[in-house]
Amino acid sequence: MTLHASMGRLGLTHPVFQAPIGSIASPELAAAVSNTGGLGHLACTWRSPDQLRALFAAMAGLTSRPYGANFVLDFPIDERLDVALAHGVRLISFFWGDGGRHVARVKAAGAVAVQVIGSIEEAKRAADAGFDLIVAQGREAGGHVRGSLGTMTLVPQVVDAVSPLPVLAGGGIVDRRGVAAAEALGASGVWVGTRFLAAAEANIHPRYQELVLASCGDDTLYSELFDGGWPNAPLRTLKTATTRNWEAAGRPSAPNRPGEGEIVAQRSDGSGVPRYFFSSPTRDVSGDVEAMALYVGEGVGLVHSREAASVIVAELATGFRETAPAKVAE
Amino acid sequence: MTLHASMGRLGLTHPVFQAPIGSIASPELAAAVSNTGGLGHLACTWRSPDQLRALFAAMAGLTSRPYGANFVLDFPIDERLDVALAHGVRLISFFWGDGGRHVARVKAAGAVAVQVIGSIEEAKRAADAGFDLIVAQGREAGGHVRGSLGTMTLVPQVVDAVSPLPVLAGGGIVDRRGVAAAEALGASGVWVGTRFLAAAEANIHPRYQELVLASCGDDTLYSELFDGGWPNAPLRTLKTATTRNWEAAGRPSAPNRPGEGEIVAQRSDGSGVPRYFFSSPTRDVSGDVEAMALYVGEGVGLVHSREAASVIVAELATGFRETAPAKVAE
Repeated sequence: MTLHASMGRLGLTHPVFQAPIGSIASPELAAAVSNTGGLGHLACTWRSPDQLRALFAAMAGLTSRPYGANFVLDFPIDERLDVALAHGVRLISFFWGDGGRHVARVKAAGAVAVQVIGSIEEAKRAADAGFDLIVAQGREAGGHVRGSLGTMTLVPQVVDAVSPLPVLAGGGIVDRRGVAAAEALGASGVWVGTRFLAAAEANIHPRYQELVLASCGDDTLYSELFDGGWPNAPLRTLKTATTRNWEAAGRPSAPNRPGEGEIVAQRSDGSGVPRYFFSSPTRDVSGDVEAMALYVGEGVGLVHSREAASVIVAELATGFRETAPAKVAE
Repeated sequence: MTLHASMGRLGLTHPVFQAPIGSIASPELAAAVSNTGGLGHLACTWRSPDQLRALFAAMAGLTSRPYGANFVLDFPIDERLDVALAHGVRLISFFWGDGGRHVARVKAAGAVAVQVIGSIEEAKRAADAGFDLIVAQGREAGGHVRGSLGTMTLVPQVVDAVSPLPVLAGGGIVDRRGVAAAEALGASGVWVGTRFLAAAEANIHPRYQELVLASCGDDTLYSELFDGGWPNAPLRTLKTATTRNWEAAGRPSAPNRPGEGEIVAQRSDGSGVPRYFFSSPTRDVSGDVEAMALYVGEGVGLVHSREAASVIVAELATGFRETAPAKVAE
């Protein structure tokens, strides 16, 4: 694997990007990935500007390597983006919509501008908008799924559509086989979420992590069920009693779903998590954590053990035809 | 690519299997694929036993190499299977259900027994039933789609579940990049449909073939819309005026869909094709062929030109790490 210029500029050793897996993506996880030569990533949409400042300060103590900040465009992100850029975050990624209007600002701050897309059409639009890097998210992905095409077909069609812009393959890339497949399809790197749910550094509830290790692709559900806080956005989660009861009831719409409005779990600040809310259980949650949204990708059956993030990055990197030290194309 | 024993037994040069793409899979197409060292395939479910006898007789005049006969288990196939085995067809594949009860008969006739699956669970069942070869069909596939997982995640999880049984990757494999990706995921070969829609030998209506060459993955629709003749079976087709009108009407169920019951095209025998019928337009059809079910896979944007099947097989074969003459594992 020859590192594309935009990734060489970041000083990456391996084009292994940890996807911004919500609050599960702790600073410890992101820093460990970056320190191993990949790119760690923080989800910055649902944290307040003050929380973000504290988060970036924590990162400064954990790594001197670049990392990414992700923003979901269904939410107000302008002030948060300013905070990230002011702190010198080196890569900014946008999901769920067209981040084109932010490209100039990101580039002016010296950061790499990344757009996650879910269709060939969205990829073309992102290329036209001047993004440095495109992430092609296939339908295999865990959590919120932007488009309908699988990684196997989305990646090469996007590569052809935006060439010579580099494309990362996201969705279903879990082990070195997936990395090798992504490279064969023309991807310049990989964007991996589910595998990092099993990282020792992940801020994931132990029961959720146990279920990740015990499940396979057949156990995942693509639906719009967990719509509290983020409506009209399909996502992939584990099948659980909550999803099975909903399916058994004939997949009713809100507010007619079983147990609608119940509080199923509590956060450490004492706030309750209603059934069908979109967030997934972090370590601090107590209660019926299995009733929450347990985001996983279809490749979950390829995740077999809890490991340090550095071990995960190193194993994934062996999937590329050439490994470290990678060359940089200019 | 080292050919697995079951494929070496068939005398294949390349583990490139032409998927049984309905009536589009003419004897000329299947024979050309087999004559190039791949495996041609005939759809045998919707032809009468007498038509099958004529078909196999035609094949005998076109190739001395092995080819396959496919059977869809939502239809009565026992007598048809007898005809295929009596004619010495060397590979029998089953789709849409569990063909386990036919395995002993197929093997007793000396044929290779193949099961197409759409989930990890179905793959395990097929392995337990004694099949020689498993085809993992990802959701990217064109035509009828058995399961919900993408090829990128289905293949490695199935490979792990049924090892050392060989697994073919189907769904989204269109060019040499897809072949290389399939091999990287652990597949022992590929099962390709959409690419062969552009074969010169395909029995495909010219307008349908034109649309295949002009479309991309974003233009495909996964639905149960074309349910006439084969209900409750999701399939992937091109988006057309018929699918758009149905979506614009709010995706109503039968019999409340726009134009329900209209005859949209005619076959050469004078019979009419009703709107929402499941068959796709062969060369002999006249009328509004675009209103029929235009099966394509998500990778349709990777199909750029009409070519001889031999050229397609040869190009696909270059995707394997080692090409002809392939070694045979015993």
